[in-house]
Amino acid sequence: VISACLETLRSWDTNVRPGTLLNAGDAIAQLADRPDVHQGGVAWGAIDRIQADYQAFQARHRLDQLVVINVASTEPPFELRGVHNDLGALRTALAQPTDVPVLPASSLYAIAAIDLGIPYVNFTPSLGATFPAALALAQERKTVLAGQDGKTGETLLKSVLAPMFAHRNLRLLSWVGHNIFGNRDGQVLNDPRNKESKLRTKDQVVSSILGYKPQTLVSIEYVESLDDWKTAWDHVHFQGFLGTKMIMQFLWQGCDSLLAAPLVIDLARLMLFAQQRGEIGVLTHLACFFKNPMGVSEHDFFKQWHMLTEYVAQRQGR
Amino acid sequence: VISACLETLRSWDTNVRPGTLLNAGDAIAQLADRPDVHQGGVAWGAIDRIQADYQAFQARHRLDQLVVINVASTEPPFELRGVHNDLGALRTALAQPTDVPVLPASSLYAIAAIDLGIPYVNFTPSLGATFPAALALAQERKTVLAGQDGKTGETLLKSVLAPMFAHRNLRLLSWVGHNIFGNRDGQVLNDPRNKESKLRTKDQVVSSILGYKPQTLVSIEYVESLDDWKTAWDHVHFQGFLGTKMIMQFLWQGCDSLLAAPLVIDLARLMLFAQQRGEIGVLTHLACFFKNPMGVSEHDFFKQWHMLTEYVAQRQGR
Amino acid sequence: VISACLETLRSWDTNVRPGTLLNAGDAIAQLADRPDVHQGGVAWGAIDRIQADYQAFQARHRLDQLVVINVASTEPPFELRGVHNDLGALRTALAQPTDVPVLPASSLYAIAAIDLGIPYVNFTPSLGATFPAALALAQERKTVLAGQDGKTGETLLKSVLAPMFAHRNLRLLSWVGHNIFGNRDGQVLNDPRNKESKLRTKDQVVSSILGYKPQTLVSIEYVESLDDWKTAWDHVHFQGFLGTKMIMQFLWQGCDSLLAAPLVIDLARLMLFAQQRGEIGVLTHLACFFKNPMGVSEHDFFKQWHMLTEYVAQRQGR
Amino acid sequence: VISACLETLRSWDTNVRPGTLLNAGDAIAQLADRPDVHQGGVAWGAIDRIQADYQAFQARHRLDQLVVINVASTEPPFELRGVHNDLGALRTALAQPTDVPVLPASSLYAIAAIDLGIPYVNFTPSLGATFPAALALAQERKTVLAGQDGKTGETLLKSVLAPMFAHRNLRLLSWVGHNIFGNRDGQVLNDPRNKESKLRTKDQVVSSILGYKPQTLVSIEYVESLDDWKTAWDHVHFQGFLGTKMIMQFLWQGCDSLLAAPLVIDLARLMLFAQQRGEIGVLTHLACFFKNPMGVSEHDFFKQWHMLTEYVAQRQGR
Repeated sequence: VISACLETLRSWDTNVRPGTLLNAGDAIAQLADRPDVHQGGVAWGAIDRIQADYQAFQARHRLDQLVVINVASTEPPFELRGVHNDLGALRTALAQPTDVPVLPASSLYAIAAIDLGIPYVNFTPSLGATFPAALALAQERKTVLAGQDGKTGETLLKSVLAPMFAHRNLRLLSWVGHNIFGNRDGQVLNDPRNKESKLRTKDQVVSSILGYKPQTLVSIEYVESLDDWKTAWDHVHFQGFLGTKMIMQFLWQGCDSLLAAPLVIDLARLMLFAQQRGEIGVLTHLACFFKNPMGVSEHDFFKQWHMLTEYVAQRQGR
Repeated sequence: VISACLETLRSWDTNVRPGTLLNAGDAIAQLADRPDVHQGGVAWGAIDRIQADYQAFQARHRLDQLVVINVASTEPPFELRGVHNDLGALRTALAQPTDVPVLPASSLYAIAAIDLGIPYVNFTPSLGATFPAALALAQERKTVLAGQDGKTGETLLKSVLAPMFAHRNLRLLSWVGHNIFGNRDGQVLNDPRNKESKLRTKDQVVSSILGYKPQTLVSIEYVESLDDWKTAWDHVHFQGFLGTKMIMQFLWQGCDSLLAAPLVIDLARLMLFAQQRGEIGVLTHLACFFKNPMGVSEHDFFKQWHMLTEYVAQRQGR
Repeated sequence: VISACLETLRSWDTNVRPGTLLNAGDAIAQLADRPDVHQGGVAWGAIDRIQADYQAFQARHRLDQLVVINVASTEPPFELRGVHNDLGALRTALAQPTDVPVLPASSLYAIAAIDLGIPYVNFTPSLGATFPAALALAQERKTVLAGQDGKTGETLLKSVLAPMFAHRNLRLLSWVGHNIFGNRDGQVLNDPRNKESKLRTKDQVVSSILGYKPQTLVSIEYVESLDDWKTAWDHVHFQGFLGTKMIMQFLWQGCDSLLAAPLVIDLARLMLFAQQRGEIGVLTHLACFFKNPMGVSEHDFFKQWHMLTEYVAQRQGR
Repeated sequence: VISACLETLRSWDTNVRPGTLLNAGDAIAQLADRPDVHQGGVAWGAIDRIQADYQAFQARHRLDQLVVINVASTEPPFELRGVHNDLGALRTALAQPTDVPVLPASSLYAIAAIDLGIPYVNFTPSLGATFPAALALAQERKTVLAGQDGKTGETLLKSVLAPMFAHRNLRLLSWVGHNIFGNRDGQVLNDPRNKESKLRTKDQVVSSILGYKPQTLVSIEYVESLDDWKTAWDHVHFQGFLGTKMIMQFLWQGCDSLLAAPLVIDLARLMLFAQQRGEIGVLTHLACFFKNPMGVSEHDFFKQWHMLTEYVAQRQGR
């Protein structure tokens, strides 16, 4: 199937542009195949280059609308400071040379998009647009945002199963998840700093749904032979009537990219749809797509799904 | 924990009464430990004896309300005929000696309860009160009904997971479930005729939720060493983007009786609550408790759960 | 990889010959794509045709040696009678028209090979050459035999794991195996009569190794979407110190034909090697290849492996 | 069952003696419930106290023979130095006050036993008697040694399954094992320093048997709710004919202490048996009991078992 698209993909080669590695972390930097690209200068310089690429792409294909979706490798966690709460201060900081990084690469791409009024989706746990100054810029530029971290496999199952245990009043004692896979994403997550970002978005779902905190453990390991086949074993220990301990285990064998791809396509459509209707800011009705939905504390997949169907019903009713 | 209740349980010995085996099937009949109890006579004779037991129990414990819940072993499927659609004809048939059984044992207990205006819950896949004449009697006697077949483990998971696959547009290719357990219920289900009833309620859930029919296989086997530990392996084969086949498997190790017990207690409370409020007929808002909910075609657990919370919200709003 | 062999395979088309369905059972007969081929006549007529095909194949490719390996679909169990113990009587019976089948198809192919002095391997649980008169013919024609039923997956694991439990004195309570797959073999085994043959060879291994009989259950189901991916779930329940019950489960996801193919190749080599050395009769040192090894009651895989390495060591020592 | 032994166990209270924590590591030290016991002084002082306890125990129960088996928590890895190769130098060092620890606690118990001619078994991955000077002392005192790290569950399965893959020429690509449990042992292994010792003995088995190194990952996590129920998920990725990737997974749910206990009892018997026969040094025929058998590089469980049965056969033949 993929080979049928080969010719089209090749003709799109000119759309693949060198990016920026500014503060993307060592694990990602080591995988870069264009060390010749200049990475220095002030951050706004990188933003300028990225914006030029966005605009050239739109012009080349004569597109009415554009949407930017971050599916790059997960960056290490980035510590927010005062400057990230104040759009003015942020602009100033991005235009000056600094020793301390102002923003990681994912956020430079985000700012570049938002500043041009382009919808931006963060399909990874990287910082992207998830800080107050970015939200303020989106309001100013009247564009839409969504994220963060696509919910494709193990976490999707958590957000489906945890409500069941809650509704049946089966108290969870522990939930252990072990993930193995061997694609580029896995290679980057093998670095403990990058993995940390992922574990944060994966680990909060269960206790958020339950309202109490069972012991939870999530681990991710890079296993080269698995390629894109993300395999997860989850061991769920729970307590039934009279305190009796029982066990549910599941095994997930999914092709990671092919689980993500249709979500990315749907997100692109839903972002463009919202922009056309003049919506602004974080699209909370897209919560069911994400492990850590922006602006939404609800993690129950079926309640998130209800938010999406309600949104559709309201738009149809207009 | 159970031993702490031993004295109370012993003092209740007088409440354990010989029942009827009329048309309960060979597998159940062979396990009966009171072959001396007379099983002959017309069916209404058995109903009379059962009603006397119900009333003696209520008098002995000075109870305001009573609820009858069928948790007996699963009977073989029972073929419905014209007489089961007509309450008058059924009454006549039950009062006459016949060669062809008019009703199985589960339905005699149901008729006995309903005829006295006692709420009746069918926690098994046996016939119980799931035929038109029984519903008509419930209307006449102004009592409430619910059933059928408690959703405790593997089927609960099906009704939770199938909607997830549907919402993510992951097409199911096949769903194979293999159940093993060693309690009395397992012993009876080892008879292919009784197993047939169970497989029917277990097997319809997935395709009903999806709206199309993947290959489904459900098997149940009696494994003595497992006692009450019902163990299920489910292999779910599905197709993602570009037709790629992926797999989810789960293993459920639950203590069957202790999963059923709290549902039975909650059902008793909810039945009595509804009767006090003057409700009549099948309580469709209890669908989330059952594999094959009476009067409801919805199998999605979260939609069923929503029916229950809506019911509660409405009653609170009065 | 397979497509690289396509041209060679196509040029071998003339080697694919219509066979016989005499007594192969209904399930196999329904899958036949050459209903035009005459299936009547006396059994020896079919043997004659098969022998002519063997000889034409050998001549066409100018081969010094030939080996016949049965990898056809599993036939239903075949009841042996007096005639199968007596080579003379069998010959007579095969040459006469009969109402009661004298031999199933697998045995006609076997007799055809043995009668020409060609080594014969039965990689299936079908009857093949596993009866006294066939052994007598192998002695007479001075050829070698091996079988029966290739040990490729779940049963291989049983013959590896059961000795571990025995050596650790962990008493097995029950061993449940559930197999699902969707290839032609699975399609034929979906017929309960053919499945019966398979279950017989699969179910004896555990108790034979242990010396006592825990409860064992083996089931096989045809699941179309799995194609050649044979998936097995085994639940092993055992008792440790102080009677404590513990559980091991395994999941096997193997490509059935590709597990069988290298064993078939090795068997061909080992059969030809033995024939060259003048060995005659059943080759018991090949036990590790089979679920139900001819002439060997040992099912412990590592003892069977030892038989093979001993054989090699002895031949090297000559 | 255990409660039946309660009285005997209580009467043995006087046999439970405060030990030494010298160099046992922080994780173990923090769990100690007798901080009042003096831990200072030279190492040989601790050995003296331990020897007095051994002798008092033997006298109290009038025992002909004694055996010491280390089942204490796993210590962090201990770096060997020149002094551990020279018995004379070691004795001197143990008798002097030092800043750098000479031996960890497990080895002080070992030296105490060996010095009295008492057989010593190391059922843990701690250092114990696994260094040249301890072996020399065993030769001098004419006593027997065995170890190290009891093979009870996941590693036992590795040493059983890896030979199967090797014999079938199925190339292993990766073997991932994830272990969770909640007993005291798990609590100590939660400390990365102690876990390191365990991972070393667990991780070498597969590649040692295969003769090449697939990617192997072993992880251990402390999950409180599991208590003594050690649960392991192993994902074995292997390559069959034509490079086709296939998967075997197993789930082990064993009660850790009850898997270890009978091995400990058998080891005690076999050590005393060997000592009575005048054997000296490391008992290599006990390899099948250990993850990392002293003096033996063979990890194939069935070859190790053969070593034990050969030993028995030889002794019976005398």
